[in-house]
Amino acid sequence: MKATLLYGPGDVRVEELAYPTIQSPTDAVVKVTLACVCGSDLWDFNDSDALTEGRPRGHEFLGVVEQIGADVKNVKVGDLVVAPFVASCGHCDRCLKGQCTSCRNLGFFGHGGEAGGQSEAVRVPNADGTLVTIPVGMDSPLIPSILTLSDVMCTGHHAAVTAGVEAGDSVVVIGDGAVGLCAVIAAKRLGAAKIILMGRHEGRTNLGREFGATDVVAERGQAGIDAVKALTGGDGAFRVLECVGTQDAIDTALAVVADYGHIGRVGAAQYEKIDFGFGPLMRNITITGGVAPARKYMDELLVDVLNGSINPGKVFDLEVSLDDVAKAYEAMSSRTHLKVLVRP
Amino acid sequence: MKATLLYGPGDVRVEELAYPTIQSPTDAVVKVTLACVCGSDLWDFNDSDALTEGRPRGHEFLGVVEQIGADVKNVKVGDLVVAPFVASCGHCDRCLKGQCTSCRNLGFFGHGGEAGGQSEAVRVPNADGTLVTIPVGMDSPLIPSILTLSDVMCTGHHAAVTAGVEAGDSVVVIGDGAVGLCAVIAAKRLGAAKIILMGRHEGRTNLGREFGATDVVAERGQAGIDAVKALTGGDGAFRVLECVGTQDAIDTALAVVADYGHIGRVGAAQYEKIDFGFGPLMRNITITGGVAPARKYMDELLVDVLNGSINPGKVFDLEVSLDDVAKAYEAMSSRTHLKVLVRP
Repeated sequence: MKATLLYGPGDVRVEELAYPTIQSPTDAVVKVTLACVCGSDLWDFNDSDALTEGRPRGHEFLGVVEQIGADVKNVKVGDLVVAPFVASCGHCDRCLKGQCTSCRNLGFFGHGGEAGGQSEAVRVPNADGTLVTIPVGMDSPLIPSILTLSDVMCTGHHAAVTAGVEAGDSVVVIGDGAVGLCAVIAAKRLGAAKIILMGRHEGRTNLGREFGATDVVAERGQAGIDAVKALTGGDGAFRVLECVGTQDAIDTALAVVADYGHIGRVGAAQYEKIDFGFGPLMRNITITGGVAPARKYMDELLVDVLNGSINPGKVFDLEVSLDDVAKAYEAMSSRTHLKVLVRP
Repeated sequence: MKATLLYGPGDVRVEELAYPTIQSPTDAVVKVTLACVCGSDLWDFNDSDALTEGRPRGHEFLGVVEQIGADVKNVKVGDLVVAPFVASCGHCDRCLKGQCTSCRNLGFFGHGGEAGGQSEAVRVPNADGTLVTIPVGMDSPLIPSILTLSDVMCTGHHAAVTAGVEAGDSVVVIGDGAVGLCAVIAAKRLGAAKIILMGRHEGRTNLGREFGATDVVAERGQAGIDAVKALTGGDGAFRVLECVGTQDAIDTALAVVADYGHIGRVGAAQYEKIDFGFGPLMRNITITGGVAPARKYMDELLVDVLNGSINPGKVFDLEVSLDDVAKAYEAMSSRTHLKVLVRP
């Protein structure tokens, strides 16, 4: 079957890989009906050594259950399902606390030579703990929004939840990528009164306004910080959602957060250290967040996708066939497009 | 009147300063009946330039109200009161949210040439928002414990509260100074089931056990980390209270905190940067805490001091007269004593 493999910078290919099979009685095999490219897929696409063996790609997908292992009870063959970006068992102590990304039996897609989500089919470890059954068909217009539950919508939500966004809050969202825009949705959903989106790509920030941003700050550096301060009575915001992951972004977060405020960071950190010494201590700043336990949030957010109160699928602005997956990487890497669907 | 002034490293003197007077209608003048030396007083004592003008010292004290300004309503002349280590108004938006250390009208003791708390009397700005009336006399054995509410008990409590300590939790307390020992009290008070105290001064860790520590780890570095891991099933603790403030201490906190865990830091940071990049992000670690809003906590903790359920005054292991205040600094600096009372 066809699968996406990365061979090095700018070098994504579709090649034949073995069709997945049940390896453990808790596995399922899912025939992928829709996948997409993640911002994190671009790290290696933009910066990696050339690889002699291709690395299978893709961890955001939905599809139809084709086979289940003997112990799988929660999904059945023929179910349309969506997966979070990592597999978790659902029954270990950490999963029971909602700490799915630190599951004792954590599994990954596209590791160990197996196909990832950007392929025709994928093996899902711990299917009962991982998969969420979708109560609509592939013809539903809600499908793209449901696919965002695999990662970006849950990741934006995690930033908002960990930062403690509550009704009436002023919130700054740093970053107008798909995660930042989903963080805007999440902040609005949690009742934020003022949502300041920091981003400079007008098409994206316009979508951010549609999602609920009340203000957009396009400036960066000190000018951006000054603009946020001006919008928040001089104090900065009590809740800051850092959805980029660069040193600049976390530095900006620390500069625009109000005393006693919370920074929920979900941008995959490309920095190693944070300036978080005496000054922020005296200001009682909290840095929280992390990689999102998407599986924990999917059921709750699915309800709101189904009832139409959130529409995160609007972050997709291009669709390509699996054969053309390289175009998806190029489009996102060159920022001509925000987030790209891949249809096998 | 007599007041304590710092002139440089190891050079603390008692000198004459003007008796404080009401400067603003919201002021009170408090005749100090008991004060103490703070760990933070030692920073300048151990490491500062020689000063041509002495710097007044002391921000932990209790005493009798001698004069009040025209607008003061909550305390009256003759009241025995205790002050938190900074003065806050109690009515600004931040005070109303309990963010007293970021009060819009924040005041300090011993600034601007005025006497600090280690003196015969002190001016208290915003007396209504700052002072807490004590319902016992100076002859009460509870007085030393009440004095700890000015700083160390509230600071240890802040570490525990911000780290989210709840009934049944496993908690690591880093540091066996007065704040660390008070953090043990706070963790036990909040219901922690296991309290691992990291400290190597046996007299202090024994007091920690008396306060509620279930385990003591005297080792430092990797051996200490390994010992904590062994005591926590390999995971580390979900709540870590960092009560030292050195780079070593915060690094240890990050090493012994469990995935999705919270570090409540209150040790006055002597570091500038924290290794808080991709690894801790993937583990969903939160760093919270800060300088304690003592005034917010004093009423609640005073109740427990008065009913005898906590006895933080045991951290005091020496008392000197104001004339001998230099001995207090020397005793704490050389670690022959844990925390020293100063009686004017």
